[in-house]
Amino acid sequence: MKAKIIITPKKAVFDPQGKTVENALEHMGYTGVEGVHVGKYIEIDLADGDKEEVRKKIDEAAHKFLSNPVIEDYQLEIE
Amino acid sequence: MKAKIIITPKKAVFDPQGKTVENALEHMGYTGVEGVHVGKYIEIDLADGDKEEVRKKIDEAAHKFLSNPVIEDYQLEIE
Repeated sequence: MKAKIIITPKKAVFDPQGKTVENALEHMGYTGVEGVHVGKYIEIDLADGDKEEVRKKIDEAAHKFLSNPVIEDYQLEIE
Repeated sequence: MKAKIIITPKKAVFDPQGKTVENALEHMGYTGVEGVHVGKYIEIDLADGDKEEVRKKIDEAAHKFLSNPVIEDYQLEIE
Protein backbone atom coordinates (compact mmCIF):
# COMPACT_ATOMS: atom_id res chain seq x y z
CA MET A 1 0.00 0.00 0.00
CA LYS A 2 1.06 3.51 -0.69
CA ALA A 3 0.01 6.83 0.79
CA LYS A 4 0.60 9.93 -1.31
CA ILE A 5 0.40 13.29 0.39
CA ILE A 6 0.57 16.61 -1.43
CA ILE A 7 1.11 19.60 0.85
CA THR A 8 0.64 23.08 -0.59
CA PRO A 9 0.68 26.55 0.94
CA LYS A 10 -2.83 27.94 1.45
CA LYS A 11 -3.85 30.36 -1.30
CA ALA A 12 -3.75 33.33 1.08
CA VAL A 13 -0.20 32.56 2.21
CA PHE A 14 2.67 34.22 0.37
CA ASP A 15 4.58 31.58 -1.57
CA PRO A 16 8.07 32.90 -2.36
CA GLN A 17 9.20 29.60 -3.95
CA GLY A 18 6.21 29.68 -6.28
CA LYS A 19 6.88 33.30 -7.16
CA THR A 20 10.52 32.49 -7.92
CA VAL A 21 9.57 29.61 -10.23
CA GLU A 22 6.96 31.84 -11.92
CA ASN A 23 9.55 34.56 -12.55
CA ALA A 24 12.07 32.00 -13.80
CA LEU A 25 9.56 30.51 -16.25
CA GLU A 26 8.72 33.97 -17.60
CA HIS A 27 12.37 34.86 -17.83
CA MET A 28 13.05 31.69 -19.84
CA GLY A 29 10.35 32.65 -22.31
CA TYR A 30 7.46 30.49 -21.14
CA THR A 31 4.36 32.57 -21.74
CA GLY A 32 0.89 32.03 -20.35
CA VAL A 33 2.01 31.27 -16.80
CA GLU A 34 -0.63 32.69 -14.47
CA GLY A 35 0.62 31.42 -11.15
CA VAL A 36 2.84 28.82 -9.55
CA HIS A 37 2.47 27.06 -6.22
CA VAL A 38 5.29 25.03 -4.77
CA GLY A 39 4.63 22.43 -2.12
CA LYS A 40 5.85 19.14 -0.76
CA TYR A 41 5.16 15.62 -1.84
CA ILE A 42 5.43 12.71 0.57
CA GLU A 43 5.07 9.09 -0.49
CA ILE A 44 4.79 6.50 2.27
CA ASP A 45 5.18 2.77 1.56
CA LEU A 46 2.97 0.87 3.96
CA ALA A 47 2.37 -2.72 4.93
CA ASP A 48 -0.98 -3.95 3.57
CA GLY A 49 -3.91 -3.47 5.88
CA ASP A 50 -7.42 -2.12 6.12
CA LYS A 51 -7.56 0.84 3.75
CA GLU A 52 -9.88 2.97 5.88
CA GLU A 53 -7.88 2.36 9.03
CA VAL A 54 -4.63 3.23 7.26
CA ARG A 55 -6.24 6.37 5.81
CA LYS A 56 -7.33 7.48 9.25
CA LYS A 57 -3.87 7.00 10.73
CA ILE A 58 -2.01 8.70 7.89
CA ASP A 59 -4.55 11.53 7.81
CA GLU A 60 -3.90 12.11 11.50
CA ALA A 61 -0.13 12.10 10.91
CA ALA A 62 -0.50 14.50 7.97
CA HIS A 63 -2.59 16.86 10.03
CA LYS A 64 -0.53 16.61 13.19
CA PHE A 65 3.02 16.82 12.02
CA LEU A 66 3.60 16.31 8.32
CA SER A 67 1.85 19.57 7.45
CA ASN A 68 1.33 22.85 9.22
CA PRO A 69 -2.47 23.29 9.09
CA VAL A 70 -2.20 27.01 9.86
CA ILE A 71 -0.51 27.81 6.56
CA GLU A 72 -0.78 24.61 4.50
CA ASP A 73 -3.43 22.40 2.95
CA TYR A 74 -2.91 18.74 2.16
CA GLN A 75 -4.45 16.09 -0.05
CA LEU A 76 -4.14 12.46 0.91
CA GLU A 77 -4.52 9.53 -1.42
CA ILE A 78 -4.23 5.86 -0.45
CA GLU A 79 -3.44 3.35 -3.19
CA MET B 1 -5.28 24.79 -17.49
CA LYS B 2 -3.11 23.38 -14.79
CA ALA B 3 0.20 21.54 -14.84
CA LYS B 4 1.04 19.37 -11.86
CA ILE B 5 4.60 18.21 -11.44
CA ILE B 6 5.75 15.77 -8.80
CA ILE B 7 9.51 15.60 -8.36
CA THR B 8 10.97 12.76 -6.30
CA PRO B 9 14.53 11.65 -5.57
CA LYS B 10 15.54 8.62 -7.63
CA LYS B 11 15.27 5.39 -5.68
CA ALA B 12 19.06 4.94 -5.61
CA VAL B 13 19.65 8.41 -4.16
CA PHE B 14 19.87 8.79 -0.40
CA ASP B 15 16.79 10.69 0.82
CA PRO B 16 17.53 12.14 4.27
CA GLN B 17 14.18 13.96 4.46
CA GLY B 18 12.34 10.73 3.76
CA LYS B 19 14.41 8.87 6.34
CA THR B 20 13.66 11.58 8.91
CA VAL B 21 9.91 11.38 8.28
CA GLU B 22 10.10 7.57 8.44
CA ASN B 23 11.86 7.70 11.80
CA ALA B 24 9.41 10.29 13.10
CA LEU B 25 6.41 8.16 12.09
CA GLU B 26 7.88 5.12 13.82
CA HIS B 27 8.72 7.15 16.88
CA MET B 28 5.12 8.43 17.05
CA GLY B 29 3.85 4.86 17.06
CA TYR B 30 2.83 4.47 13.41
CA THR B 31 3.60 0.86 12.56
CA GLY B 32 3.83 -0.71 9.12
CA VAL B 33 5.84 2.10 7.54
CA GLU B 34 8.21 0.50 5.03
CA GLY B 35 9.70 3.57 3.44
CA VAL B 36 9.15 7.28 2.90
CA HIS B 37 10.16 9.43 -0.05
CA VAL B 38 9.96 13.20 0.17
CA GLY B 39 9.86 15.30 -2.96
CA LYS B 40 8.55 18.51 -4.40
CA TYR B 41 5.20 19.39 -5.85
CA ILE B 42 4.80 22.22 -8.35
CA GLU B 43 1.43 23.39 -9.63
CA ILE B 44 1.44 25.81 -12.55
CA ASP B 45 -1.69 27.74 -13.56
CA LEU B 46 -1.63 28.24 -17.31
CA ALA B 47 -3.60 30.15 -19.89
CA ASP B 48 -5.73 27.78 -21.97
CA GLY B 49 -4.07 26.45 -25.08
CA ASP B 50 -3.27 23.35 -27.03
CA LYS B 51 -2.80 20.59 -24.44
CA GLU B 52 -0.02 18.75 -26.29
CA GLU B 53 1.91 21.94 -26.96
CA VAL B 54 1.62 23.00 -23.34
CA ARG B 55 2.71 19.54 -22.20
CA LYS B 56 5.78 19.72 -24.42
CA LYS B 57 6.79 23.13 -23.07
CA ILE B 58 6.24 22.28 -19.42
CA ASP B 59 7.96 18.92 -19.85
CA GLU B 60 10.99 20.75 -21.24
CA ALA B 61 10.94 23.20 -18.31
CA ALA B 62 10.60 20.34 -15.81
CA HIS B 63 13.52 18.50 -17.36
CA LYS B 64 15.73 21.56 -17.85
CA PHE B 65 15.39 23.46 -14.64
CA LEU B 66 12.54 22.49 -12.37
CA SER B 67 14.09 19.12 -11.60
CA ASN B 68 17.63 17.82 -11.49
CA PRO B 69 17.50 14.80 -13.82
CA VAL B 70 20.73 13.39 -12.39
CA ILE B 71 19.20 12.68 -9.00
CA GLU B 72 15.45 13.25 -9.46
CA ASP B 73 12.55 11.80 -11.40
CA TYR B 74 9.43 13.75 -12.25
CA GLN B 75 5.87 13.04 -13.26
CA LEU B 76 3.94 15.63 -15.23
CA GLU B 77 0.18 15.84 -15.50
CA ILE B 78 -1.74 18.44 -17.50
CA GLU B 79 -5.35 19.09 -16.53
